[in-house]
Amino acid sequence: MKQITGGICAAEGFTANGIHCGIRKNRSKRDLSLIFSQNRAACAAVYTQNLVKGAPISVTKAHIADGFAQAVIVNSGNANTCNFNGVEIAESMGALAAEKLNISAKDVVVASTGVIGLPMSLDPIRGGIDSLVSGLSREGSANAAEGIMTTDTRKKEIAVEFAIGSKTCRMGGIAKGSGMIHPNMATMLVFITTDVSITPEMLQKALSTDVKSSFNMLSIDGDTSTNDMVVVMANGKAGNETIKTGGEDFSAFCKALNTVTVALCKMIAADGEGATKLLECEVSGASDVETARTVAKSVICSSLLKAAMFGADANWGRVLCAIGYSGAKVDINRIDLRFRSAKGDILVCKDGHGVDFSEERAKEILLENEIEILVNLNAGDCTSKAWGCDLTYDYVKINGDYRT
Amino acid sequence: MKQITGGICAAEGFTANGIHCGIRKNRSKRDLSLIFSQNRAACAAVYTQNLVKGAPISVTKAHIADGFAQAVIVNSGNANTCNFNGVEIAESMGALAAEKLNISAKDVVVASTGVIGLPMSLDPIRGGIDSLVSGLSREGSANAAEGIMTTDTRKKEIAVEFAIGSKTCRMGGIAKGSGMIHPNMATMLVFITTDVSITPEMLQKALSTDVKSSFNMLSIDGDTSTNDMVVVMANGKAGNETIKTGGEDFSAFCKALNTVTVALCKMIAADGEGATKLLECEVSGASDVETARTVAKSVICSSLLKAAMFGADANWGRVLCAIGYSGAKVDINRIDLRFRSAKGDILVCKDGHGVDFSEERAKEILLENEIEILVNLNAGDCTSKAWGCDLTYDYVKINGDYRT
Repeated sequence: MKQITGGICAAEGFTANGIHCGIRKNRSKRDLSLIFSQNRAACAAVYTQNLVKGAPISVTKAHIADGFAQAVIVNSGNANTCNFNGVEIAESMGALAAEKLNISAKDVVVASTGVIGLPMSLDPIRGGIDSLVSGLSREGSANAAEGIMTTDTRKKEIAVEFAIGSKTCRMGGIAKGSGMIHPNMATMLVFITTDVSITPEMLQKALSTDVKSSFNMLSIDGDTSTNDMVVVMANGKAGNETIKTGGEDFSAFCKALNTVTVALCKMIAADGEGATKLLECEVSGASDVETARTVAKSVICSSLLKAAMFGADANWGRVLCAIGYSGAKVDINRIDLRFRSAKGDILVCKDGHGVDFSEERAKEILLENEIEILVNLNAGDCTSKAWGCDLTYDYVKINGDYRT
Repeated sequence: MKQITGGICAAEGFTANGIHCGIRKNRSKRDLSLIFSQNRAACAAVYTQNLVKGAPISVTKAHIADGFAQAVIVNSGNANTCNFNGVEIAESMGALAAEKLNISAKDVVVASTGVIGLPMSLDPIRGGIDSLVSGLSREGSANAAEGIMTTDTRKKEIAVEFAIGSKTCRMGGIAKGSGMIHPNMATMLVFITTDVSITPEMLQKALSTDVKSSFNMLSIDGDTSTNDMVVVMANGKAGNETIKTGGEDFSAFCKALNTVTVALCKMIAADGEGATKLLECEVSGASDVETARTVAKSVICSSLLKAAMFGADANWGRVLCAIGYSGAKVDINRIDLRFRSAKGDILVCKDGHGVDFSEERAKEILLENEIEILVNLNAGDCTSKAWGCDLTYDYVKINGDYRT
């Protein structure tokens, strides 16, 4: 497997675009994106488990109930959530795109992200749909990635090339993250395209399994959004024998999918609201994978640890504390803990108790912008990783005044 | 019931003191406190549910297993947690106090708060114990309250007077809070004294019931501490007929206890690390009390809502979002939401959807330093309250560099 360029347009048969249509006042920020497949593609999705759901989610669920889709339309700047006419607006967004693309409205995935509870007008989308569609191109991934950003500071794109049987396949993804990121079965907005031929059932199975070790192990701030959505479209253009069951081909597909999703997770975590550091907690030596996940997620979610990482402070007691309240059944007295970065690694806790270590050396390691927190439970051979970011002044600044 | 002065020394037969003994380098900050009852008192406690537990917790549990205690010794500056010789140190602290007080070491409650995993020396305590004991007085509550503070900016004391039968009774409490506050069956350190006569069993029942609606509904930062402890001592000096069962007297006692615990909760929340505002979420119209509690706690814990409150931003979508991911079974389309403060109140959401409201008026209300978030689920008549604070730059500052 190798990384390639092109994002969501790397796979054969996909084009994309992103424009400013006026949902946002800032004219320099794209706010409407479109992804299009030449043919109907197998489509799978996972959604937020929040009881409060954005209107686009129910519309998308209905549209892809048959396992297929051909386009994705998505806006930023307004979540279209908790609005009385939300479903009507979401349906109309999809219908506008379908009409211009000359496809069925039922084959359009609709998504929105932005402020909750703000009435949403269809006018900017109606005004922009012509240029959105006419601008679709194989080079459009970056513009589409920008169109879904809210407080994100960087576009999040990835693409890989891999083999299934004798065929070369491609898969790419874009994502938006930043705040209200604590996915439960899904994350904010992630769109993945691939030219692999796979049935909708196997595609959904691959995605539903994957999110357990990817997006569900990601947290910026503990707030599970109302609009989380991960969508994968597979249009079969690579010409491989259609994947209909488990086996070698399905494993190769799942591996590629996990490469794309984990890469997007790290990009989302590193660009969390106000973040200066990407944190990765790797738990090893767990008796079962569920324990490993619970521990890793709890560590990555601790506000106190996140603030300590911002200050490059090796306050390891906060890691132990977070493991202790995680709910996982672990033997605290067997835990070893290290911090690691590009500058090396340092042991700070052995058998659940502090060890002598150089604060200067720890500081040097923690001043890097990618930090690994390595927890060994010494109780088995299961592992898990979780991703998050530090808690900074800028998180408070961004969220103290988001709407103005 | 009326509020009186005197804190933990308001009840007959209790004295207290707090000194600087040298656990902390800052000589102007008291770091060792003592509470003493003239006679053995019925004693009940609740503790953290964190698997990582401070050494003093196991020592205290063993000491009060018989339902009685006569003194509390507590230090700040070191949590005595994750240290190899922690239990030995905690036992020695208790023994030093017992020897000077001429009581049994088994009648001493031991507690610690501060940095986790820092080796703790007994020397400062050994050096300070004489002046700690000789300074015990009826006026010592404030010094004891100061001695348990860590990043707290204000002492937390309360006392009330109430009647049981024909007898006037008193109850007082001190607390330390600030950070790592998300109690699970207990809170950081709270010590409550009363001269009521009550059996240890009924005292424990009153406390265990009370924390469900008091300290367990409090969160500063979502981090459940390793050292949480709430201890109540009842020495019987008020001369009431000993409370041995439920009934009118027990109800009067529980009411006084709840007045003290809720007052301390609010003080802890208002003085959360970096806090500028006390937040109270009141959930009404719930089908059952568990639902009300789950919703209230989820709202108060949302980092996004906390940051919005810091910015006096009426971003009510974040409240709905937090209700949606709380795990409580609620009908989102029946929720009404108001913000209230000393400046009045404003409806921002009706039946789960936004209503027109004046942003200027909302700002005026939210600029106050005590904010109520009023959620009506319109599904029953159960209620609950939870307390927290806003998320500010100073929380990050304090916790980015706590140990240096």
